[in-house]
Amino acid sequence: MSQTQRRFVVARVPTGALTADCFRLEDAPVPEPKEGEVLLRSLYVSLDAANRAWMQGATYRAAVEPGSVMAGGALGEVVASRHPQFKPGELASGDLGWQEYSAVPGKALLKETRVEPLSHLQSVYGITGLTAYFGLLEVGQPKAGETLVVSAAAGAVGNVVGQIGKILGCRVVGVAGGDAKCHWLTETLGFDAAVDYKAGPMYKSLKAACPQGIDVYFDNVGGDVFEAALFQMNARGRIACCGAVSGYDSAPPPHGPRGVPGMIVVKRLTVRGFIVMDFFARRAAALAQLQAWVRDGKIRVVEDVIDGFENLPQALVGLLHGENRGKRMVKVRGQVLH
Amino acid sequence: MSQTQRRFVVARVPTGALTADCFRLEDAPVPEPKEGEVLLRSLYVSLDAANRAWMQGATYRAAVEPGSVMAGGALGEVVASRHPQFKPGELASGDLGWQEYSAVPGKALLKETRVEPLSHLQSVYGITGLTAYFGLLEVGQPKAGETLVVSAAAGAVGNVVGQIGKILGCRVVGVAGGDAKCHWLTETLGFDAAVDYKAGPMYKSLKAACPQGIDVYFDNVGGDVFEAALFQMNARGRIACCGAVSGYDSAPPPHGPRGVPGMIVVKRLTVRGFIVMDFFARRAAALAQLQAWVRDGKIRVVEDVIDGFENLPQALVGLLHGENRGKRMVKVRGQVLH
Repeated sequence: MSQTQRRFVVARVPTGALTADCFRLEDAPVPEPKEGEVLLRSLYVSLDAANRAWMQGATYRAAVEPGSVMAGGALGEVVASRHPQFKPGELASGDLGWQEYSAVPGKALLKETRVEPLSHLQSVYGITGLTAYFGLLEVGQPKAGETLVVSAAAGAVGNVVGQIGKILGCRVVGVAGGDAKCHWLTETLGFDAAVDYKAGPMYKSLKAACPQGIDVYFDNVGGDVFEAALFQMNARGRIACCGAVSGYDSAPPPHGPRGVPGMIVVKRLTVRGFIVMDFFARRAAALAQLQAWVRDGKIRVVEDVIDGFENLPQALVGLLHGENRGKRMVKVRGQVLH
Repeated sequence: MSQTQRRFVVARVPTGALTADCFRLEDAPVPEPKEGEVLLRSLYVSLDAANRAWMQGATYRAAVEPGSVMAGGALGEVVASRHPQFKPGELASGDLGWQEYSAVPGKALLKETRVEPLSHLQSVYGITGLTAYFGLLEVGQPKAGETLVVSAAAGAVGNVVGQIGKILGCRVVGVAGGDAKCHWLTETLGFDAAVDYKAGPMYKSLKAACPQGIDVYFDNVGGDVFEAALFQMNARGRIACCGAVSGYDSAPPPHGPRGVPGMIVVKRLTVRGFIVMDFFARRAAALAQLQAWVRDGKIRVVEDVIDGFENLPQALVGLLHGENRGKRMVKVRGQVLH
């Protein structure tokens, strides 16, 4: 199988905002799977703010270094397998990287059950949906009648968090950038209110949207939005720290939000970071619940699918600029190997 | 009983560091208890950093306003009672304020069992000891072999936190101001290491004291110490937010610690504020455990008792400057009423 494929290598680590020329497209041989590995053809590559964070240094995974294939989650179809649990034609997801074909240890893969459309395995039934589900339910612990605020609310995780909040009977307030997104959150997704963080200091608009204060804040962004929410938390409130995208695409911020730890003490808050894998022991039950909600029309699946492998760098740059609504992914149309 | 007593009234709210002239000593009539109230003679008045925080605005209690008697916890002896659960000669604690005699609703009082010496009811068996106990065990959740860092470690709560940490088998590192306190923590209280936050930027000295990173940080101070600890937390670490004394005695800090929420996400930390009353359902069991540890010589009770009611303002000012080791309180020698 000495065929060639395309891949993106990290050309340089950005110091400020990410640009597409931080990546270099190159041809490379399709790899041969070693013992225990699986050869996959990527179908959908996930774009995530975390991709950018990985370029800043070590996080819950090693940093992405210049010269290496760009890291990224993807859904792939098994082409060949030297791992007993995977057979050709099956689906699997994992960190396949920004390449059309990858050879990955079977133990680093998650087997996926085929659904229609397949893209849902990267959105509501993928890391995105599960992050929303576990982060909100396990970390946020919302109760009916409470006020839930979610930032990056029109984004991949945020929109699902808000929709689950509505199912649970919360007052749901989304924070998003721009009037169009805010309008979409309330009119199309059924949020109770939306606050535009680009329309100037948002403390007052957030307060107007949360007349009873905030019980649960699902934070995807950090920075000024975190600070505005922190000061409006109710006693015994919970902040689920899912990401800090406001700090990913630039040098580290010179200071953190005011009110830390003072507000945390005075209001007896719980502020907790998590990654979705912490809860994977209960993945099957979570997926069953998400599938039921989608089937019953309670969750609208919002996807932003960009066609063509070559568009990956620009797709990530755009995501960091807030272009997307819902889950952004790139559809790969690699030739099927024989 | 139209006798007079002494009390301290808040003369003005400080804008910067607290000074003794923010309080005014005045004579006032000993109050008559109303139906449901108890008349108490104060024996020991507790000095707490929280006293200063109450002068900054509403916290978990209403702000202390000019013209009112200064608020403060105290241990008192019942002189007269119009509440069925209290009898003359019994002991009770509560917010009796900075006055020799107080009439307080019985339901706002906690009955205390006489111990020898009585001062222990304000230190290890009072709010102080219980805050250390519940904050460390319930919020910090330390395990044997883990590294525990506690700030304001020579203070009332901090020294007990560290001593309990040693009982539980943790590596205990105290942060305190000055070489003398640090030496005392390691030589007298048995801490494994101590870091002097006054000896310059403490990131490196903290790192040297915590070669395995930090699993539990018990925070009494906020600010730079919080930031230094945050960046050295291990994955799934816990930060118990007990107070933020670094920000109490000055205008609010212009910024919060860096790394919030980024470090919280990446390291999946739990950062939780608490007040001791949240755990009072289990107060009796906690007291029994503390008493056993004191009896067995595992906890050394450290008290800083200042004689004379008139010394209250200076005692608080000094506490905020870090004068004390262990629990500071003022012993009141009010005349016994007949």
